[in-house]
Amino acid sequence: MLLDETAAGVYVIAVTPFRDDGALDLSSLDSMVDFYLEKGADGLTILGMMGEAPKLTGAESVAVARQVLRRVDGRVPVVVGVSAPGFASMVELAQAVMDLGAAGVMVAPPSTLRTDDQIVQYYRTAGDMLGATPFVLQDFPLSTQVQISPAVLDRIIAAVPTCVMIKHEDWPGLAKIEALRQTSAKGGRRVSILTGNGGLFLPEELQRGADGAMTGFAYPEMMVGISTRHAAGDSEGAQDLFDAYLPLARYEQQPGLGLAVRKYILAKRGAIASASLRRPGPKLGAADIREIERLIARQTRRLDSLR
Amino acid sequence: MLLDETAAGVYVIAVTPFRDDGALDLSSLDSMVDFYLEKGADGLTILGMMGEAPKLTGAESVAVARQVLRRVDGRVPVVVGVSAPGFASMVELAQAVMDLGAAGVMVAPPSTLRTDDQIVQYYRTAGDMLGATPFVLQDFPLSTQVQISPAVLDRIIAAVPTCVMIKHEDWPGLAKIEALRQTSAKGGRRVSILTGNGGLFLPEELQRGADGAMTGFAYPEMMVGISTRHAAGDSEGAQDLFDAYLPLARYEQQPGLGLAVRKYILAKRGAIASASLRRPGPKLGAADIREIERLIARQTRRLDSLR
Amino acid sequence: MLLDETAAGVYVIAVTPFRDDGALDLSSLDSMVDFYLEKGADGLTILGMMGEAPKLTGAESVAVARQVLRRVDGRVPVVVGVSAPGFASMVELAQAVMDLGAAGVMVAPPSTLRTDDQIVQYYRTAGDMLGATPFVLQDFPLSTQVQISPAVLDRIIAAVPTCVMIKHEDWPGLAKIEALRQTSAKGGRRVSILTGNGGLFLPEELQRGADGAMTGFAYPEMMVGISTRHAAGDSEGAQDLFDAYLPLARYEQQPGLGLAVRKYILAKRGAIASASLRRPGPKLGAADIREIERLIARQTRRLDSLR
Amino acid sequence: MLLDETAAGVYVIAVTPFRDDGALDLSSLDSMVDFYLEKGADGLTILGMMGEAPKLTGAESVAVARQVLRRVDGRVPVVVGVSAPGFASMVELAQAVMDLGAAGVMVAPPSTLRTDDQIVQYYRTAGDMLGATPFVLQDFPLSTQVQISPAVLDRIIAAVPTCVMIKHEDWPGLAKIEALRQTSAKGGRRVSILTGNGGLFLPEELQRGADGAMTGFAYPEMMVGISTRHAAGDSEGAQDLFDAYLPLARYEQQPGLGLAVRKYILAKRGAIASASLRRPGPKLGAADIREIERLIARQTRRLDSLR
Repeated sequence: MLLDETAAGVYVIAVTPFRDDGALDLSSLDSMVDFYLEKGADGLTILGMMGEAPKLTGAESVAVARQVLRRVDGRVPVVVGVSAPGFASMVELAQAVMDLGAAGVMVAPPSTLRTDDQIVQYYRTAGDMLGATPFVLQDFPLSTQVQISPAVLDRIIAAVPTCVMIKHEDWPGLAKIEALRQTSAKGGRRVSILTGNGGLFLPEELQRGADGAMTGFAYPEMMVGISTRHAAGDSEGAQDLFDAYLPLARYEQQPGLGLAVRKYILAKRGAIASASLRRPGPKLGAADIREIERLIARQTRRLDSLR
Repeated sequence: MLLDETAAGVYVIAVTPFRDDGALDLSSLDSMVDFYLEKGADGLTILGMMGEAPKLTGAESVAVARQVLRRVDGRVPVVVGVSAPGFASMVELAQAVMDLGAAGVMVAPPSTLRTDDQIVQYYRTAGDMLGATPFVLQDFPLSTQVQISPAVLDRIIAAVPTCVMIKHEDWPGLAKIEALRQTSAKGGRRVSILTGNGGLFLPEELQRGADGAMTGFAYPEMMVGISTRHAAGDSEGAQDLFDAYLPLARYEQQPGLGLAVRKYILAKRGAIASASLRRPGPKLGAADIREIERLIARQTRRLDSLR
Repeated sequence: MLLDETAAGVYVIAVTPFRDDGALDLSSLDSMVDFYLEKGADGLTILGMMGEAPKLTGAESVAVARQVLRRVDGRVPVVVGVSAPGFASMVELAQAVMDLGAAGVMVAPPSTLRTDDQIVQYYRTAGDMLGATPFVLQDFPLSTQVQISPAVLDRIIAAVPTCVMIKHEDWPGLAKIEALRQTSAKGGRRVSILTGNGGLFLPEELQRGADGAMTGFAYPEMMVGISTRHAAGDSEGAQDLFDAYLPLARYEQQPGLGLAVRKYILAKRGAIASASLRRPGPKLGAADIREIERLIARQTRRLDSLR
Repeated sequence: MLLDETAAGVYVIAVTPFRDDGALDLSSLDSMVDFYLEKGADGLTILGMMGEAPKLTGAESVAVARQVLRRVDGRVPVVVGVSAPGFASMVELAQAVMDLGAAGVMVAPPSTLRTDDQIVQYYRTAGDMLGATPFVLQDFPLSTQVQISPAVLDRIIAAVPTCVMIKHEDWPGLAKIEALRQTSAKGGRRVSILTGNGGLFLPEELQRGADGAMTGFAYPEMMVGISTRHAAGDSEGAQDLFDAYLPLARYEQQPGLGLAVRKYILAKRGAIASASLRRPGPKLGAADIREIERLIARQTRRLDSLR
């Protein structure tokens, strides 16, 4: 089951659970997988930026992928982040996880890329090095510092057939989705576009032509519910659901601190055993936790009122 | 009426109205002032980043300040953005607007600053050059690329007595407000903290110790309402109001495009005659406008339901 | 006398002389002009980055241009840096200096530009706003953070006829000169290329197709001598001269501190009255001055041995 | 033999030899080690930025270290670059190479660090994670984008006893060496300072208090000769030697392209079999090679004239 251009729905960006002492918590990977699938995930993405991937050794990365793939057991496709400072490490990890049954890999651009040609050349080389492995291009300028114009994405899509999906996380980026869809309407290859940014623009993104979400908000049922209602033509219902989750989604989307918020909620919901981030990582303070709890309580009431 | 450390409430970041041909629209400055004051603004901030200040000539900047100050006529304090690549231009504009009756000026750090000492030295020099003029330190790393730690803010507050306010726009930044308040609780000078980021964290910011907001969301009554309810101890009411405005506030907060959204709404509400930005600036597309109108309609219904 | 694509030779990047108290030293502008012309300058460039332009007010910038243009009195073309955060200020200064007799203006890209299209659009707009005024595109990534590929320069040259010169200051950049010359060899418009980087690659740059230098090393006779010998086919002689000046040229090319070195030497040589930079700017220490004096002494001996 | 604060002399930054097909060339590691030691290296530094370290897999990195350490066989200390996006990978590689006999490791700051406290905290954590392993702090802002003030270096040196050396590669940075030496003159721990930047400021750096060089210019005998003469009090002789090598050293110091120049010369001198860089990497053009050969020929003549 390889990832291709038809991928759609909600791919949850998975966290990587650690124990309080910083060791990998492999058993929480199982409960986390169960949690995400119960909430309706159509796919999983592991070892992304929000998966603390850079804090793992190569062997740990493979161990995480192995555990997740074993637990998923083919029920949904699993995408694995393989971004690395150099191609040798990227290819090594990609081969390992594809051998274990991953559906594809995800590649963010290194922050040193600047000109259009540098970006295109980077993905040409990546495609070349990765061989037949399908990959997701992660377009996340706020984090990577690399701005990729729609025209450059078009060039990459035209030149690199194994680029089957854009993880769209530009901000603002609604016009970018439209531009990409105009290209495919004119005969360009139509790739999958799943959107990130914590789901904060999901209703609009779907209306502009995105195929779903690839993001890690601790309530995956939000993304699933919005996608389902959108697909059913119920855009007001989708937006009502969105509005109910928005105050907390906004809070979780804070750079840096957001992952600690996400893990706090996931631990509270029983998906993982510990909310700990591996060092170095932020810790929530008392005020943070108070605010999260308050937002959760309000969210629960609001969701109840929608039923 | 000079700005000082007791400043509080809602200082609206004003736009700069242009005609469709790009010329300054001085008469819209009058209607805009009236609009902001009717909605309850406690102060105005003009010629900030969202005021397209870098697109104005020196003479135009002074003209805008003169017109606004004349219309405000002392009813509320007016802060004027004077950030410039060099101190000579900064001081020249500052002197001009203080002579015209401004309450103070606002200074963002140049993007070349990196080390703590460079940042402290910059504001020492700014304070020295600005003489008796009170100033607001604009702390907005997403735009300036300059990260200022709480300890550095403490050093500046201790060293530069004319720094009377922090325009807090770090993200995430809730812990920063707390840290600054801890310093003043221990005897450090307590400056005013007004928060930015389009109001997207205003309830939490007030709870952490902010004195109000300095931001430009096209519904200033949101910030006013939240501040008022917060001051009255009605934090749930404040949050209800916040939630009602949040979907649109989120939409307006998109970098780059956001100002076009804001001006569209302000023009629709009659505050300014034209939604145009001066070149170069983004233009809204049909899909953008559809989304804004839909969000406004939903917001109106939601606010009605709160009454 | 307007700047055009045939410009060649040595355009000296002029400093802006200040008195010890930071005031403009207009009379030193006269002696500086005399000095540069005596040393063989084919043109002057004022109000560039090394001219501390951002530290001047608008009125001061015009005063500097007026004084220099009056002293030059048409003997050589004068280019004026007009880079500004916005187009209104840029156009205002450009009109003022062209009215005073400048040959053209120079425009560096703002550091916020990232994608190819953003860069091209910026210069299209600049060309449009500047009207008939010929301009130099300053390509200096180390300072501007904007990387402009040869293909993008080709697009700008094709689209904006008033772009008549590239101030080439990319590093490494020899292949870029070659690429631009290949385009013009194939029929593209051939613009002037003058090179910067303190002259540290001048022999190679000339061999690759540059038309001369636009840089501010405090010994303009180096650039003049190298260009003259190169034009006469004496590339070994050019390189001998280069080698003799290189140790000091290298020292003067230090970022930040370099301008203080340059002004120290210019003051020592009698070109300007004071070596002061306007605040904020670096000051030389005792060790710096010792090293400069030693390098000057060695350079003098070496030049003597070449005669 | 562990690295400590007394380290001095010339530590050559070694390249990593590849075959033309991109495979590691382990046998060239032997000839390269022999070459560097013959030229007088007092130590070697492998797997640095100029060693194309990010292009290697973890296993390849260990293989390179093993081969070099075996060939060196204890004759000189070997420092190994272990910079990595996260601490787990860093520690894994550090342990492996220390077990193989390395003298210490080198750690550059990740480009995301901004504030003073972030930098200090990073090195505190690194020191903690690396345990007893002595390490070199690589201070190279042009590449890392991280500016570390002398005061921050002082804080790290005071807080992290296993930080025994600064690889000084700030530019300009002469005053930084002086500042660090002033701190140790006042009782602070005196660490070793070896300088980089291709040796382009070595005479001045030694005079300011550096203990030697850690850089990779393809003529290590330049750094050795300068250091030796400096130590013997022959500063004019040191500078004469410097001047003779400077034109080529300058050429090799071009960012990006420079490593291709270096490998070309090393291959020409017989130190390595192929000048190839692993993909992605620049390739020299015909004009580049012509210029290098010309500079080598001139350098040879100049050196002959010094004898």
